[in-house]
Amino acid sequence: MTVFEATCTAPVNIAVVKYWGKRDTSLILPTNSSLSVTLSQDQLHSKTTIRASADFTSDRLWLNGIEESIEKNKRLVACLRETRALRAQIEEKDASLPKLASLKIHICSENNFPTAAGLASSASGYACLVYTLSQLFQLPLDASDLSIVARQGSGSACRSLFGGFVAWEMGEKADGSDSKAVQIAPETHWPDLQAMICVVSDEKKGTSSTEGMQLTVKTSALLQHRIKEVVPKRMEEMIAAIRNKDFPKFAELTMQDSNQFHAVCLDTYPPIFYMNDISRAIIRIITEYNKDGVKAAYTFDAGPNAVIYAPEKNMAEIYAVLSHFFPGATFDDSLGLLSKTSTLPPLPQNFDTRVSPVFAQGSVKQILHTKADNGPRVLDSAQHGLLNAEGLPKRLA
Amino acid sequence: MTVFEATCTAPVNIAVVKYWGKRDTSLILPTNSSLSVTLSQDQLHSKTTIRASADFTSDRLWLNGIEESIEKNKRLVACLRETRALRAQIEEKDASLPKLASLKIHICSENNFPTAAGLASSASGYACLVYTLSQLFQLPLDASDLSIVARQGSGSACRSLFGGFVAWEMGEKADGSDSKAVQIAPETHWPDLQAMICVVSDEKKGTSSTEGMQLTVKTSALLQHRIKEVVPKRMEEMIAAIRNKDFPKFAELTMQDSNQFHAVCLDTYPPIFYMNDISRAIIRIITEYNKDGVKAAYTFDAGPNAVIYAPEKNMAEIYAVLSHFFPGATFDDSLGLLSKTSTLPPLPQNFDTRVSPVFAQGSVKQILHTKADNGPRVLDSAQHGLLNAEGLPKRLA
Repeated sequence: MTVFEATCTAPVNIAVVKYWGKRDTSLILPTNSSLSVTLSQDQLHSKTTIRASADFTSDRLWLNGIEESIEKNKRLVACLRETRALRAQIEEKDASLPKLASLKIHICSENNFPTAAGLASSASGYACLVYTLSQLFQLPLDASDLSIVARQGSGSACRSLFGGFVAWEMGEKADGSDSKAVQIAPETHWPDLQAMICVVSDEKKGTSSTEGMQLTVKTSALLQHRIKEVVPKRMEEMIAAIRNKDFPKFAELTMQDSNQFHAVCLDTYPPIFYMNDISRAIIRIITEYNKDGVKAAYTFDAGPNAVIYAPEKNMAEIYAVLSHFFPGATFDDSLGLLSKTSTLPPLPQNFDTRVSPVFAQGSVKQILHTKADNGPRVLDSAQHGLLNAEGLPKRLA
Repeated sequence: MTVFEATCTAPVNIAVVKYWGKRDTSLILPTNSSLSVTLSQDQLHSKTTIRASADFTSDRLWLNGIEESIEKNKRLVACLRETRALRAQIEEKDASLPKLASLKIHICSENNFPTAAGLASSASGYACLVYTLSQLFQLPLDASDLSIVARQGSGSACRSLFGGFVAWEMGEKADGSDSKAVQIAPETHWPDLQAMICVVSDEKKGTSSTEGMQLTVKTSALLQHRIKEVVPKRMEEMIAAIRNKDFPKFAELTMQDSNQFHAVCLDTYPPIFYMNDISRAIIRIITEYNKDGVKAAYTFDAGPNAVIYAPEKNMAEIYAVLSHFFPGATFDDSLGLLSKTSTLPPLPQNFDTRVSPVFAQGSVKQILHTKADNGPRVLDSAQHGLLNAEGLPKRLA
């Protein structure tokens, strides 16, 4: 019998205009639009294989080699229900199509980065799930259509269905049919833009973003002002900055929006903290680095890790500055930054190293160099599939 | 010849609705009203002796035993000019009065707490300067009149001219004549309210509040919303909570306003940080302590130090909780808290100690127990004066 299987990877995205707050928690409809940059799957990705087979007696899911319950995960169930319903519709219209909608499936998904690193894995994970389902079921949907499904798995996942620069339009409709991702510009539009991810060690696990954002919606007096007055204008300015490849403007807006996101977290009652003293030191260091002109932009999501966006030409210097204050960080040099630069450049002439103490070894655990890149990729299951002949994971944890 | 001299002390005040932002930087007119609690001079005070003498050839100033230039300090010059002008007026009206307005003066001022502790000393210092001048010059002014003068030395100083619970009404007039302090309730109104000050050690000196607040006015989109929408309502609610001695409401408003003040600092570009990981741990600890009902309120000014307000009956328990997470802090037990409680109470039954790691010895350097108390006090110069017969400081640094 023929095996129906698809294997895909999907990227991580890091917002430069942040998503924080839902107006509908079951459909995951946001209180404001947001905008992100899709990072290269060469460094960070989720990979998913999904097989449909008459031999399977139930739907099963393995995440990073551990079997998880599907039923308990309402959001996952929603994504399956929606894609199967769409498959059923096209099967009705065309009797020649194999009847996949009624078959049980096995889902096997892995991230190539440690969840422990605190890099948002739900975005790439749900984007990969929905994209792989659309491949398996051969759904006649474009990435924006799929983003509406992925959004119901994890809000920010909708932005990982596109490469490059992606806006999540909040929409207005109650059913969420207009709350979708659209591509502002492809990765090829601004190839010079790169990113450096600083994985910061932290004793204290912060509030989950799902709980955190609704507590902010409920208690922060400042959030409503951000939603109504600040973000709409900032979205327009950010889109213009990206279209014009105006890095200083892009950077300023990115840093201001990261600051404001953490400000409304602090205005929450009780307050929510995601940045720690190391995160704040990185902000001081980048602020000092930018004092004679904006050469880098920091942004922080719901955790202490920093993502620093900058033009390629500044990356070696930024790495040198970070290495000065954060010794002992392992460097993931996938882009060959150090091999290109025989020696690390010195700190900028007038850089005032007193802006921060030099931190203990491993305060920043890892620095990863990456860049803007494309959206989900389809792989050859025969070669790259995660399931064996029996439809079970090749690798278990 | 007769010596004209006055010696006074003035208290520190800690705001529960914060002052952050000036609409006029020379007159020191704020962008919003604020409200504070005056802390006891038995623990913390500034002390000032001012002598006027025909023997003096110039105005001179000693702060904590070190001579400082008066001319270079525009704000100090403004306070002298205003009080001398008022003295000259009453001398004109009554020829029998000694001609003090034209005499040179020597000012000697000391704080009984280390400035290094990062406790706002400018508020008590300028309140003490202006109050002592008013005593020396026998000015027919009430505390609100004097607060208008002290405000021009240091904004929050105006609130230290009263004891108890004090509002600084922002006023509207361009000349600042209606931007003054008024007493909401005397210290005797709510004798049960006490405070514990945690002096937090910090490597990094933060931005000065004078520079910081104007950067916030210039760059924070959220500050305007705080000024227009949040603070006016919060002032009314805070005044009502104080009048009703409603501690849970007082505490909730105090914590929310501290959080929001630090939120607008974070929304500033580049962002301003005053709290550090130790400050944030204190917030988490008090939040956990309050989980079954509000028993304590934290507030943070422009630095990492915490001030915790609570009813007297909770103080020993709060000290026990703080001591668990911050070993090795010296305890200033002026109120005899520990002598009253033979043994330290245990942590509350259901207190989850996982909310914070136990910090290294001395992360909190000192814990000081104090309470709400009265306004400036007049001392007998013969006994308590800081100047010797020659009009020079008895103590030099």
